[in-house]
Amino acid sequence: MPRTKGDHEARRRDVSEAVWRVLAAHGFGGLTLRAVAAELGATTGLLTHYFPAKRDLVAHALDLLEERSASRPRRAAGSGLSAVRAALLDVLPLNAEATDANRIWVSSWDVALADSALSGDHARRYAQSRDRLSDLIAAAQRLGELPAGDPARIAAGAQAFVLGLVVQTLFDPTAFPAQRQAELLDDYLASLTSPPAPHGEGTDPS
Amino acid sequence: MPRTKGDHEARRRDVSEAVWRVLAAHGFGGLTLRAVAAELGATTGLLTHYFPAKRDLVAHALDLLEERSASRPRRAAGSGLSAVRAALLDVLPLNAEATDANRIWVSSWDVALADSALSGDHARRYAQSRDRLSDLIAAAQRLGELPAGDPARIAAGAQAFVLGLVVQTLFDPTAFPAQRQAELLDDYLASLTSPPAPHGEGTDPS
Repeated sequence: MPRTKGDHEARRRDVSEAVWRVLAAHGFGGLTLRAVAAELGATTGLLTHYFPAKRDLVAHALDLLEERSASRPRRAAGSGLSAVRAALLDVLPLNAEATDANRIWVSSWDVALADSALSGDHARRYAQSRDRLSDLIAAAQRLGELPAGDPARIAAGAQAFVLGLVVQTLFDPTAFPAQRQAELLDDYLASLTSPPAPHGEGTDPS
Repeated sequence: MPRTKGDHEARRRDVSEAVWRVLAAHGFGGLTLRAVAAELGATTGLLTHYFPAKRDLVAHALDLLEERSASRPRRAAGSGLSAVRAALLDVLPLNAEATDANRIWVSSWDVALADSALSGDHARRYAQSRDRLSDLIAAAQRLGELPAGDPARIAAGAQAFVLGLVVQTLFDPTAFPAQRQAELLDDYLASLTSPPAPHGEGTDPS
Protein backbone atom coordinates (compact mmCIF):
# COMPACT_ATOMS: atom_id res chain seq x y z
CA MET A 1 0.00 0.00 0.00
CA PRO A 2 1.29 3.49 -0.79
CA ARG A 3 2.07 5.66 2.20
CA THR A 4 -0.41 8.45 2.68
CA LYS A 5 0.47 12.11 2.67
CA GLY A 6 -0.43 12.10 6.37
CA ASP A 7 2.19 9.41 7.11
CA HIS A 8 4.75 11.39 5.23
CA GLU A 9 3.95 14.59 7.08
CA ALA A 10 4.00 12.82 10.44
CA ARG A 11 7.36 11.30 9.68
CA ARG A 12 8.75 14.67 8.64
CA ARG A 13 7.56 16.15 11.91
CA ASP A 14 9.24 13.33 13.85
CA VAL A 15 12.48 13.94 11.98
CA SER A 16 12.28 17.68 12.66
CA GLU A 17 11.60 17.06 16.35
CA ALA A 18 14.67 14.81 16.53
CA VAL A 19 16.82 17.42 14.77
CA TRP A 20 15.60 20.05 17.25
CA ARG A 21 16.39 17.88 20.28
CA VAL A 22 19.89 17.12 18.96
CA LEU A 23 20.49 20.84 18.40
CA ALA A 24 19.22 21.79 21.85
CA ALA A 25 21.52 19.23 23.47
CA HIS A 26 24.60 19.38 21.25
CA GLY A 27 24.36 22.41 19.01
CA PHE A 28 25.26 22.53 15.33
CA GLY A 29 28.68 21.14 16.25
CA GLY A 30 26.97 17.92 17.33
CA LEU A 31 24.43 17.77 14.50
CA THR A 32 25.14 14.58 12.55
CA LEU A 33 22.94 12.07 10.73
CA ARG A 34 24.05 9.52 13.31
CA ALA A 35 22.97 11.70 16.26
CA VAL A 36 19.58 12.45 14.67
CA ALA A 37 19.09 8.75 13.83
CA ALA A 38 19.86 7.79 17.45
CA GLU A 39 17.44 10.44 18.74
CA LEU A 40 14.76 9.20 16.34
CA GLY A 41 15.41 5.50 16.93
CA ALA A 42 15.92 5.07 13.18
CA THR A 43 18.74 4.12 10.86
CA THR A 44 21.04 6.68 9.29
CA GLY A 45 19.92 5.11 6.00
CA LEU A 46 16.39 6.38 6.55
CA LEU A 47 17.76 9.86 7.24
CA THR A 48 19.83 10.02 4.07
CA HIS A 49 16.46 9.90 2.30
CA TYR A 50 15.66 13.26 3.90
CA PHE A 51 19.18 14.64 3.99
CA PRO A 52 21.45 13.35 1.22
CA ALA A 53 24.35 15.45 2.53
CA LYS A 54 25.38 17.05 5.81
CA ARG A 55 24.68 20.44 4.26
CA ASP A 56 21.02 19.47 3.72
CA LEU A 57 20.73 18.59 7.38
CA VAL A 58 22.21 21.94 8.40
CA ALA A 59 19.93 23.79 5.98
CA HIS A 60 16.89 21.98 7.40
CA ALA A 61 18.02 22.83 10.93
CA LEU A 62 18.32 26.51 10.03
CA ASP A 63 14.88 26.49 8.36
CA LEU A 64 13.46 24.84 11.43
CA LEU A 65 15.03 27.47 13.65
CA GLU A 66 13.55 30.25 11.57
CA GLU A 67 10.09 28.63 11.39
CA ARG A 68 9.93 27.97 15.10
CA SER A 69 11.15 31.45 15.91
CA ALA A 70 8.58 33.00 13.59
CA SER A 71 5.72 30.91 15.01
CA ARG A 72 6.64 31.06 18.68
CA PRO A 73 4.04 32.44 21.06
CA ARG A 74 4.41 36.16 21.68
CA ARG A 75 3.40 38.33 24.56
CA ALA A 76 0.35 40.52 24.19
CA ALA A 77 2.15 43.64 23.16
CA GLY A 78 0.03 46.66 23.94
CA SER A 79 1.47 49.76 22.34
CA GLY A 80 4.29 52.20 22.85
CA LEU A 81 7.03 51.35 25.30
CA SER A 82 5.17 48.27 26.55
CA ALA A 83 5.27 46.86 23.00
CA VAL A 84 9.03 47.50 22.87
CA ARG A 85 9.41 45.74 26.21
CA ALA A 86 7.27 42.78 25.08
CA ALA A 87 9.27 42.37 21.87
CA LEU A 88 12.54 42.34 23.82
CA LEU A 89 11.21 39.97 26.48
CA ASP A 90 10.11 37.65 23.66
CA VAL A 91 13.78 37.23 22.72
CA LEU A 92 15.07 36.29 26.18
CA PRO A 93 15.54 32.74 27.50
CA LEU A 94 12.95 33.15 30.25
CA ASN A 95 11.73 29.55 30.14
CA ALA A 96 12.95 26.13 29.00
CA GLU A 97 11.52 26.39 25.51
CA ALA A 98 13.00 29.81 24.85
CA THR A 99 16.29 28.61 26.32
CA ASP A 100 16.45 25.74 23.83
CA ALA A 101 15.66 28.05 20.94
CA ASN A 102 18.25 30.60 22.04
CA ARG A 103 20.87 27.93 22.59
CA ILE A 104 20.25 26.81 19.01
CA TRP A 105 20.42 30.38 17.68
CA VAL A 106 23.73 30.99 19.42
CA SER A 107 25.04 27.70 18.10
CA SER A 108 23.97 28.66 14.57
CA TRP A 109 26.30 31.66 14.68
CA ASP A 110 29.37 29.45 14.26
CA VAL A 111 27.90 27.68 11.25
CA ALA A 112 26.66 30.91 9.73
CA LEU A 113 29.89 32.89 10.19
CA ALA A 114 31.77 30.15 8.33
CA ASP A 115 29.53 30.41 5.25
CA SER A 116 28.99 33.72 3.48
CA ALA A 117 25.50 32.79 2.19
CA LEU A 118 24.32 31.72 5.63
CA SER A 119 26.00 34.73 7.19
CA GLY A 120 24.13 36.98 4.78
CA ASP A 121 20.85 35.28 5.73
CA HIS A 122 21.55 35.90 9.41
CA ALA A 123 22.52 39.51 8.72
CA ARG A 124 19.21 40.07 6.90
CA ARG A 125 17.29 38.37 9.70
CA TYR A 126 18.85 40.59 12.36
CA ALA A 127 18.38 43.69 10.21
CA GLN A 128 14.66 42.86 9.86
CA SER A 129 14.45 42.34 13.56
CA ARG A 130 16.05 45.76 14.17
CA ASP A 131 13.61 47.30 11.68
CA ARG A 132 10.61 45.87 13.52
CA LEU A 133 12.05 47.12 16.80
CA SER A 134 12.70 50.49 15.22
CA ASP A 135 9.02 50.78 14.23
CA LEU A 136 7.97 49.98 17.79
CA ILE A 137 10.41 52.54 19.15
CA ALA A 138 9.15 55.20 16.74
CA ALA A 139 5.60 54.45 17.90
CA ALA A 140 6.68 54.82 21.55
CA GLN A 141 8.30 58.14 20.66
CA ARG A 142 5.08 59.35 19.03
CA LEU A 143 3.27 58.50 22.27
CA GLY A 144 5.87 60.51 24.19
CA GLU A 145 7.04 57.40 26.08
CA LEU A 146 10.56 57.55 24.67
CA PRO A 147 12.59 60.69 24.02
CA ALA A 148 13.44 61.82 20.51
CA GLY A 149 16.39 60.23 18.75
CA ASP A 150 17.05 58.06 15.71
CA PRO A 151 14.81 54.99 16.25
CA ALA A 152 17.13 52.77 14.17
CA ARG A 153 20.04 53.71 16.39
CA ILE A 154 18.06 53.03 19.56
CA ALA A 155 16.89 49.71 18.07
CA ALA A 156 20.47 48.65 17.29
CA GLY A 157 21.41 49.32 20.91
CA ALA A 158 18.40 47.49 22.29
CA GLN A 159 19.01 44.48 20.07
CA ALA A 160 22.65 44.39 21.16
CA PHE A 161 21.53 44.46 24.77
CA VAL A 162 19.15 41.52 24.51
CA LEU A 163 21.45 39.39 22.35
CA GLY A 164 24.27 39.80 24.86
CA LEU A 165 21.92 39.05 27.74
CA VAL A 166 20.91 35.84 25.95
CA VAL A 167 24.56 34.77 25.72
CA GLN A 168 25.33 35.52 29.35
CA THR A 169 22.20 33.71 30.50
CA LEU A 170 22.94 30.58 28.47
CA PHE A 171 26.35 30.27 30.09
CA ASP A 172 25.25 31.21 33.57
CA PRO A 173 21.55 30.44 34.08
CA THR A 174 22.01 30.52 37.86
CA ALA A 175 23.31 34.09 37.73
CA PHE A 176 20.59 35.12 35.28
CA PRO A 177 17.25 33.62 36.30
CA ALA A 178 14.17 34.96 34.52
CA GLN A 179 13.55 37.65 37.10
CA ARG A 180 17.08 39.04 36.84
CA GLN A 181 16.88 39.08 33.04
CA ALA A 182 13.66 41.08 33.27
CA GLU A 183 15.16 43.46 35.85
CA LEU A 184 18.21 44.08 33.66
CA LEU A 185 15.97 44.71 30.67
CA ASP A 186 13.87 47.11 32.72
CA ASP A 187 17.02 48.94 33.87
CA TYR A 188 17.94 49.26 30.21
CA LEU A 189 14.50 50.54 29.21
CA ALA A 190 14.48 52.96 32.14
CA SER A 191 17.81 54.35 30.95
CA LEU A 192 16.35 54.83 27.47
CA THR A 193 13.49 56.90 28.80
CA SER A 194 15.90 59.39 30.42
CA PRO A 195 18.26 61.08 27.97
CA PRO A 196 18.03 63.56 26.56
CA ALA A 197 14.97 64.52 28.60
CA PRO A 198 15.70 63.63 32.18
CA HIS A 199 12.65 64.93 33.99
CA GLY A 200 9.86 62.50 34.48
CA GLU A 201 8.16 60.12 32.20
CA GLY A 202 8.87 60.28 28.51
CA THR A 203 9.84 63.60 27.06
CA ASP A 204 7.81 65.87 29.27
CA PRO A 205 10.36 68.43 30.49
CA SER A 206 8.22 69.64 33.37
CA MET B 1 71.34 16.01 15.93
CA PRO B 2 68.67 16.54 18.56
CA ARG B 3 66.26 19.37 17.90
CA THR B 4 66.82 22.32 20.15
CA LYS B 5 64.28 23.75 22.53
CA GLY B 6 64.15 26.79 20.24
CA ASP B 7 63.10 24.66 17.28
CA HIS B 8 60.40 23.08 19.35
CA GLU B 9 59.05 26.42 20.54
CA ALA B 10 59.12 27.86 17.04
CA ARG B 11 57.23 24.86 15.71
CA ARG B 12 54.64 25.17 18.46
CA ARG B 13 54.15 28.83 17.58
CA ASP B 14 53.69 27.92 13.91
CA VAL B 15 51.10 25.32 14.85
CA SER B 16 49.26 27.80 17.06
CA GLU B 17 49.29 30.41 14.29
CA ALA B 18 47.80 27.86 11.89
CA VAL B 19 45.10 26.89 14.41
CA TRP B 20 44.25 30.59 14.86
CA ARG B 21 43.96 31.20 11.12
CA VAL B 22 41.71 28.17 10.67
CA LEU B 23 39.50 29.37 13.53
CA ALA B 24 39.29 32.90 12.16
CA ALA B 25 38.26 31.59 8.73
CA HIS B 26 36.11 28.58 9.60
CA GLY B 27 35.35 28.67 13.33
CA PHE B 28 35.37 25.70 15.67
CA GLY B 29 32.98 23.95 13.29
CA GLY B 30 35.77 23.90 10.69
CA LEU B 31 38.62 23.10 13.08
CA THR B 32 40.05 19.74 11.99
CA LEU B 33 43.56 18.28 11.95
CA ARG B 34 43.30 18.24 8.18
CA ALA B 35 42.46 21.95 7.97
CA VAL B 36 45.28 22.90 10.34
CA ALA B 37 47.73 20.68 8.43
CA ALA B 38 46.73 22.34 5.15
CA GLU B 39 47.15 25.80 6.68
CA LEU B 40 50.56 24.81 8.05
CA GLY B 41 51.70 23.01 4.91
CA ALA B 42 52.36 19.92 7.03
CA THR B 43 51.01 16.39 7.26
CA THR B 44 48.18 15.44 9.57
CA GLY B 45 50.66 12.88 10.93
CA LEU B 46 52.84 15.66 12.29
CA LEU B 47 49.81 17.25 13.95
CA THR B 48 48.72 14.09 15.72
CA HIS B 49 52.02 14.45 17.60
CA TYR B 50 50.64 17.69 19.06
CA PHE B 51 47.00 16.72 19.17
CA PRO B 52 46.40 12.99 19.61
CA ALA B 53 42.62 13.55 19.55
CA LYS B 54 40.19 16.15 18.21
CA ARG B 55 39.45 17.14 21.79
CA ASP B 56 43.13 18.07 22.32
CA LEU B 57 42.96 20.35 19.29
CA VAL B 58 39.82 22.05 20.62
CA ALA B 59 41.38 22.41 24.08
CA HIS B 60 44.48 24.00 22.55
CA ALA B 61 42.31 26.35 20.51
CA LEU B 62 40.42 27.45 23.63
CA ASP B 63 43.70 27.98 25.54
CA LEU B 64 45.00 30.00 22.64
CA LEU B 65 41.86 32.12 22.61
CA GLU B 66 42.20 32.81 26.31
CA GLU B 67 45.95 33.60 26.10
CA ARG B 68 45.53 35.93 23.16
CA SER B 69 42.60 37.66 24.77
CA ALA B 70 44.52 38.12 28.02
CA SER B 71 47.62 39.47 26.26
CA ARG B 72 45.93 41.65 23.67
CA PRO B 73 46.84 45.33 23.63
CA ARG B 74 44.55 47.46 25.76
CA ARG B 75 43.66 51.10 25.59
CA ALA B 76 45.21 53.48 28.09
CA ALA B 77 42.39 53.44 30.56
CA GLY B 78 42.50 56.59 32.65
CA SER B 79 40.12 56.34 35.58
CA GLY B 80 36.44 56.53 36.31
CA LEU B 81 34.00 56.46 33.43
CA SER B 82 36.78 56.69 30.85
CA ALA B 83 38.23 53.41 32.21
CA VAL B 84 34.80 51.79 31.87
CA ARG B 85 34.58 53.06 28.31
CA ALA B 86 38.10 51.82 27.48
CA ALA B 87 37.37 48.35 28.88
CA LEU B 88 34.20 48.09 26.80
CA LEU B 89 35.88 49.41 23.64
CA ASP B 90 38.60 46.78 24.17
CA VAL B 91 35.95 44.10 23.66
CA LEU B 92 34.54 45.40 20.38
CA PRO B 93 35.61 44.29 16.88
CA LEU B 94 36.94 47.72 15.92
CA ASN B 95 39.79 46.41 13.74
CA ALA B 96 40.71 43.26 11.82
CA GLU B 97 42.59 41.64 14.68
CA ALA B 98 39.81 42.20 17.18
CA THR B 99 37.30 40.99 14.59
CA ASP B 100 39.17 37.68 14.23
CA ALA B 101 39.37 37.23 17.98
CA ASN B 102 35.67 38.00 18.41
CA ARG B 103 34.68 35.74 15.58
CA ILE B 104 36.58 32.95 17.34
CA TRP B 105 34.98 33.76 20.70
CA VAL B 106 31.50 33.65 19.20
CA SER B 107 32.36 30.40 17.48
CA SER B 108 33.58 28.93 20.77
CA TRP B 109 30.12 29.39 22.28
CA ASP B 110 28.74 26.45 20.29
CA VAL B 111 31.56 24.15 21.42
CA ALA B 112 31.34 25.35 25.01
CA LEU B 113 27.55 25.08 25.33
CA ALA B 114 27.76 21.43 24.23
CA ASP B 115 30.22 20.51 27.00
CA SER B 116 29.44 21.22 30.63
CA ALA B 117 33.11 21.58 31.66
CA LEU B 118 33.83 24.05 28.86
CA SER B 119 30.57 25.84 29.53
CA GLY B 120 31.58 26.22 33.18
CA ASP B 121 34.94 27.66 32.09
CA HIS B 122 33.20 30.20 29.90
CA ALA B 123 30.75 31.08 32.67
CA ARG B 124 33.65 31.72 35.05
CA ARG B 125 35.46 33.78 32.43
CA TYR B 126 32.44 36.01 31.81
CA ALA B 127 31.78 36.30 35.55
CA GLN B 128 35.38 37.49 36.07
CA SER B 129 34.98 39.93 33.25
CA ARG B 130 31.81 41.29 34.88
CA ASP B 131 33.65 41.54 38.21
CA ARG B 132 36.44 43.60 36.66
CA LEU B 133 33.86 45.82 35.00
CA SER B 134 31.99 46.11 38.27
CA ASP B 135 35.17 47.39 40.00
CA LEU B 136 35.62 50.02 37.29
CA ILE B 137 31.99 51.05 37.61
CA ALA B 138 32.27 51.33 41.39
CA ALA B 139 35.34 53.55 40.90
CA ALA B 140 33.42 55.76 38.47
CA GLN B 141 30.61 56.01 41.02
CA ARG B 142 33.08 57.09 43.71
CA LEU B 143 34.24 59.83 41.36
CA GLY B 144 30.62 60.88 40.87
CA GLU B 145 30.76 60.07 37.16
CA LEU B 146 28.09 57.40 37.39
CA PRO B 147 24.99 57.55 39.58
CA ALA B 148 24.54 55.21 42.54
CA GLY B 149 23.26 51.71 41.90
CA ASP B 150 24.50 48.14 42.26
CA PRO B 151 27.76 48.07 40.26
CA ALA B 152 27.42 44.33 39.55
CA ARG B 153 24.00 44.92 38.05
CA ILE B 154 25.26 47.78 35.90
CA ALA B 155 28.24 45.63 34.85
CA ALA B 156 25.95 42.77 33.79
CA GLY B 157 23.98 45.18 31.61
CA ALA B 158 27.10 46.72 30.09
CA GLN B 159 28.60 43.33 29.33
CA ALA B 160 25.35 42.23 27.70
CA PHE B 161 25.41 45.37 25.59
CA VAL B 162 28.94 44.87 24.22
CA LEU B 163 28.56 41.13 23.64
CA GLY B 164 25.43 41.70 21.60
CA LEU B 165 27.09 44.50 19.69
CA VAL B 166 29.94 42.12 18.86
CA VAL B 167 27.47 39.60 17.43
CA GLN B 168 25.62 42.15 15.34
CA THR B 169 28.88 43.58 14.01
CA LEU B 170 30.28 40.20 13.01
CA PHE B 171 27.20 39.48 10.92
CA ASP B 172 26.85 42.96 9.49
CA PRO B 173 30.21 44.75 9.45
CA THR B 174 28.90 47.21 6.86
CA ALA B 175 26.07 48.30 9.14
CA PHE B 176 28.41 48.46 12.16
CA PRO B 177 31.71 50.07 11.18
CA ALA B 178 34.02 51.04 14.04
CA GLN B 179 32.59 54.53 14.33
CA ARG B 180 29.02 53.30 14.67
CA GLN B 181 30.05 50.75 17.30
CA ALA B 182 31.69 53.53 19.30
CA GLU B 183 28.65 55.81 18.90
CA LEU B 184 26.31 53.08 20.10
CA LEU B 185 28.56 52.40 23.07
CA ASP B 186 28.64 56.11 23.87
CA ASP B 187 24.84 56.27 23.65
CA TYR B 188 24.77 53.41 26.12
CA LEU B 189 27.23 55.07 28.50
CA ALA B 190 25.35 58.36 28.24
CA SER B 191 22.16 56.56 29.23
CA LEU B 192 23.96 55.07 32.26
CA THR B 193 24.96 58.47 33.49
CA SER B 194 21.33 59.59 33.68
CA PRO B 195 19.15 57.48 35.97
CA PRO B 196 18.50 57.55 38.79
CA ALA B 197 20.36 60.84 39.27
CA PRO B 198 19.01 63.19 36.63
CA HIS B 199 21.24 66.20 37.26
CA GLY B 200 24.71 64.98 36.37
CA GLU B 201 26.78 65.50 33.30
CA GLY B 202 25.04 64.54 30.09
CA THR B 203 21.61 64.97 31.59
CA ASP B 204 21.42 68.74 31.58
CA PRO B 205 17.96 69.43 30.21
CA SER B 206 18.81 72.96 29.10
